[in-house]
Amino acid sequence: MAAFVPPNERRVHSPHLPLGDHREAPFYGKDIISVSQFTRDDLEYIFGVAKEMRAMVERVGTFDLLKGKILANLFYEPSTRTSSSFLSAMERLGGSVIPISEVTYSSVAKGESLPDTIRTLECYADVIVIRHPEVGSAKLAAEYARKPIINGGDGIGEHPTQALLDLFTIEEELGRVDGLTVTMLGDLKYGRTVHSLARLLSLFVVRLNYVSPDILHMPADLIEELAAKGVSQKEYTNLDPVLAETDVLYVTRVQKERFEDLNDYEKAKGAFLISPETLQEAKEEMIVMHPLPRVGEISLELDSDPRAAYFRQMEYGLYVRMALLAMVLGKA
Amino acid sequence: MAAFVPPNERRVHSPHLPLGDHREAPFYGKDIISVSQFTRDDLEYIFGVAKEMRAMVERVGTFDLLKGKILANLFYEPSTRTSSSFLSAMERLGGSVIPISEVTYSSVAKGESLPDTIRTLECYADVIVIRHPEVGSAKLAAEYARKPIINGGDGIGEHPTQALLDLFTIEEELGRVDGLTVTMLGDLKYGRTVHSLARLLSLFVVRLNYVSPDILHMPADLIEELAAKGVSQKEYTNLDPVLAETDVLYVTRVQKERFEDLNDYEKAKGAFLISPETLQEAKEEMIVMHPLPRVGEISLELDSDPRAAYFRQMEYGLYVRMALLAMVLGKA
Amino acid sequence: MAAFVPPNERRVHSPHLPLGDHREAPFYGKDIISVSQFTRDDLEYIFGVAKEMRAMVERVGTFDLLKGKILANLFYEPSTRTSSSFLSAMERLGGSVIPISEVTYSSVAKGESLPDTIRTLECYADVIVIRHPEVGSAKLAAEYARKPIINGGDGIGEHPTQALLDLFTIEEELGRVDGLTVTMLGDLKYGRTVHSLARLLSLFVVRLNYVSPDILHMPADLIEELAAKGVSQKEYTNLDPVLAETDVLYVTRVQKERFEDLNDYEKAKGAFLISPETLQEAKEEMIVMHPLPRVGEISLELDSDPRAAYFRQMEYGLYVRMALLAMVLGKA
Repeated sequence: MAAFVPPNERRVHSPHLPLGDHREAPFYGKDIISVSQFTRDDLEYIFGVAKEMRAMVERVGTFDLLKGKILANLFYEPSTRTSSSFLSAMERLGGSVIPISEVTYSSVAKGESLPDTIRTLECYADVIVIRHPEVGSAKLAAEYARKPIINGGDGIGEHPTQALLDLFTIEEELGRVDGLTVTMLGDLKYGRTVHSLARLLSLFVVRLNYVSPDILHMPADLIEELAAKGVSQKEYTNLDPVLAETDVLYVTRVQKERFEDLNDYEKAKGAFLISPETLQEAKEEMIVMHPLPRVGEISLELDSDPRAAYFRQMEYGLYVRMALLAMVLGKA
Repeated sequence: MAAFVPPNERRVHSPHLPLGDHREAPFYGKDIISVSQFTRDDLEYIFGVAKEMRAMVERVGTFDLLKGKILANLFYEPSTRTSSSFLSAMERLGGSVIPISEVTYSSVAKGESLPDTIRTLECYADVIVIRHPEVGSAKLAAEYARKPIINGGDGIGEHPTQALLDLFTIEEELGRVDGLTVTMLGDLKYGRTVHSLARLLSLFVVRLNYVSPDILHMPADLIEELAAKGVSQKEYTNLDPVLAETDVLYVTRVQKERFEDLNDYEKAKGAFLISPETLQEAKEEMIVMHPLPRVGEISLELDSDPRAAYFRQMEYGLYVRMALLAMVLGKA
Repeated sequence: MAAFVPPNERRVHSPHLPLGDHREAPFYGKDIISVSQFTRDDLEYIFGVAKEMRAMVERVGTFDLLKGKILANLFYEPSTRTSSSFLSAMERLGGSVIPISEVTYSSVAKGESLPDTIRTLECYADVIVIRHPEVGSAKLAAEYARKPIINGGDGIGEHPTQALLDLFTIEEELGRVDGLTVTMLGDLKYGRTVHSLARLLSLFVVRLNYVSPDILHMPADLIEELAAKGVSQKEYTNLDPVLAETDVLYVTRVQKERFEDLNDYEKAKGAFLISPETLQEAKEEMIVMHPLPRVGEISLELDSDPRAAYFRQMEYGLYVRMALLAMVLGKA
């Protein structure tokens, strides 16, 4: 089995590197595996590119930055939201997509290993997005791949592009991240998105509030990890004490499939519903976010409130994923 | 829940409207939901564009009219014929497609509502085709969408693009619609396509014959609706009395899945088979149509008869769908 | 039912033939159904085009040779490797793809015949790749189609593009085919790929060794067929006697699904494992090939050996399929 060569070393001097000006481009040829790989400078760079992508999409819709490039969109489990977002991102950049969904990925049924699958796909594609139910799968894929790998979610592990779009949403909507109070609400125990977002936020000066039912607390090790970085964190079992100070209310879905005991699910489900009434004491300029899909956590009546940012959040995701694709392919 | 704002009002003054000459373009930014939304002038306009599309495809194959535009092809139930037709239409116009089939649409499994799904997809796409098993779903989608929605079939409700391609086939094959005798044969009770086509034909001066088994009559309310518009309609239980006068013989599949009693299906199935012998007394210039797939209603021997128009009908569908996509995106 | 008109006759004088220089182009408008259709000259022509494709991909990634052309990728059974390869080939040539997987092909569920399906799809596409579990299905499709059909595998029948890429791999890796000793190992009874490759190799001056367990011998009729062409063939039950003379070691997967008796499978499975130790007595310049996916027949430790050609083999497949698509569409 090949020893792990860090992908960044491996690919910067790729023989396929075209002549030109992007040898110095940050992220060129790199993998996007974990939020922990990013510095604050990285985030500023990514968001700068994402802003340019937004401007271009609003002006011309699509453009041919990645014309001739092919993305393999490898989804071992269904996630049409993420899958469609990457697909649209690649198409808006003029590239092409090989969509591979779990249903049709027959080689897996035939017993093929993930490394072999990756080494096959990189014969056909220039970049691979992988969604896989097992923690560590994206990292494993990156160890074997010569082409850039983007983690589209590895089970209860990471979903770094979701965290990046969440942070980009905050910056675009509120103009800054430093100094904000971010309240995370709902299922904080199993919610992969809040874990990753909290880690990214730890690069900024923020105050974090965690509001959850008793059985769904933010994991203790993550709280310790962030405390060690000096992040101010507080835990609550309801929203009332922190609503007025909240700049970002990040609501998560209570995911039935994460529960071992269905009674726990039923208890948690109805307890944290956000509606226009809930927000009466909230700031004028705060925003409500949600990774979607929602299943009752946010009432439909809230949709017309300008503070409801969850559909705009989807759109920011498009720009962030366009930025990442362009960057790892050396075209940002 | 947002009150319904008619989509036409909503989008004509869209801030995204590019400068140029298509502000006056009919159907720009509109939804295609039901055959009842079309006037005779509309049909002439659509067919004029479809004729241009046909000429362009025959001359150059594809062209870049919709380059940079993305279609979300959202199919909650499988219908590869319709799905492939829209996909090809978008690609022949230089646009891109996000294909979403029922199998992979995981958010639905997670309990997401149709409006949320639509609002997510319109972050990624410029136009959405929706196929859904429930009547009214396309209309519901259009109420929430900022982008144009095209109904690709909503259960036993409508399938307007099929009706449009059927009518376009008649006009292209026979050179006119006024003055024709159209005989519909087979399952007229459950056959969505014949209902929609009959409604469209009521905008012209035609004679309609309905030939069906007793248990599969054309619905009484539809007959009344068309009678009120002055359409000449007659019912029969076999083809003999009307074959000689028929200009268009529209054959429908006896759909097993529509029957509650399988005995009824077996009786109906074999009773209305069209073969070369059947057409011996028919006109030279008449045509035989079928929405396909056929399962025994038309014998393979008929395929080489020039009056067999059902495969050409598929091709007309491509041109009509190209026309609709270009029109709603303001590029016709 | 239409009498069979050989497709080559049928389409050479197609009214759709554009003016220009490719009337004389070999394979223009033709079907790719079986390895038995190729002469040695044909193979040289195909490989010449494939070499050009390789050079173009390495230089520019993609190019617009098939811009405006649409491929229908019709897979009645899953085979993502073949499917992705054709998809990537078409996209690298600037064309578009209608992907149709078995799961979504609803018309088949509704009882539509293969000829009707093909005649529908050719309304939307310019070329059709078909993968189907039944022997003869690609030939049947070609009999009805006006557009070129490429056989992507018809059950235990043929998989001609796999055989072509296997042969192209040999020529590219070793610089020639004549004079080589090719040893086929593993499941030679059910292995479609080795049957097709052996037939192609019979056009060259080669020595073939067949190494298999007793129950998985190369079929007697194929041995007779090749013997009649003067090919030197020998059978063995283990690799030792022929390893040292072998230029190409073609390893096949022991396919569980081909076995009627699972005990036979278990016996065969472990018996023919290739590892670095196995190759100690092999030549320096030989190559190890495998159609992939592998399930234990070749140890991962072999991957870093330069003689391990199986991942490069995938990549050659891309170039061969690009060549075939360009050729049948008259653009090579």
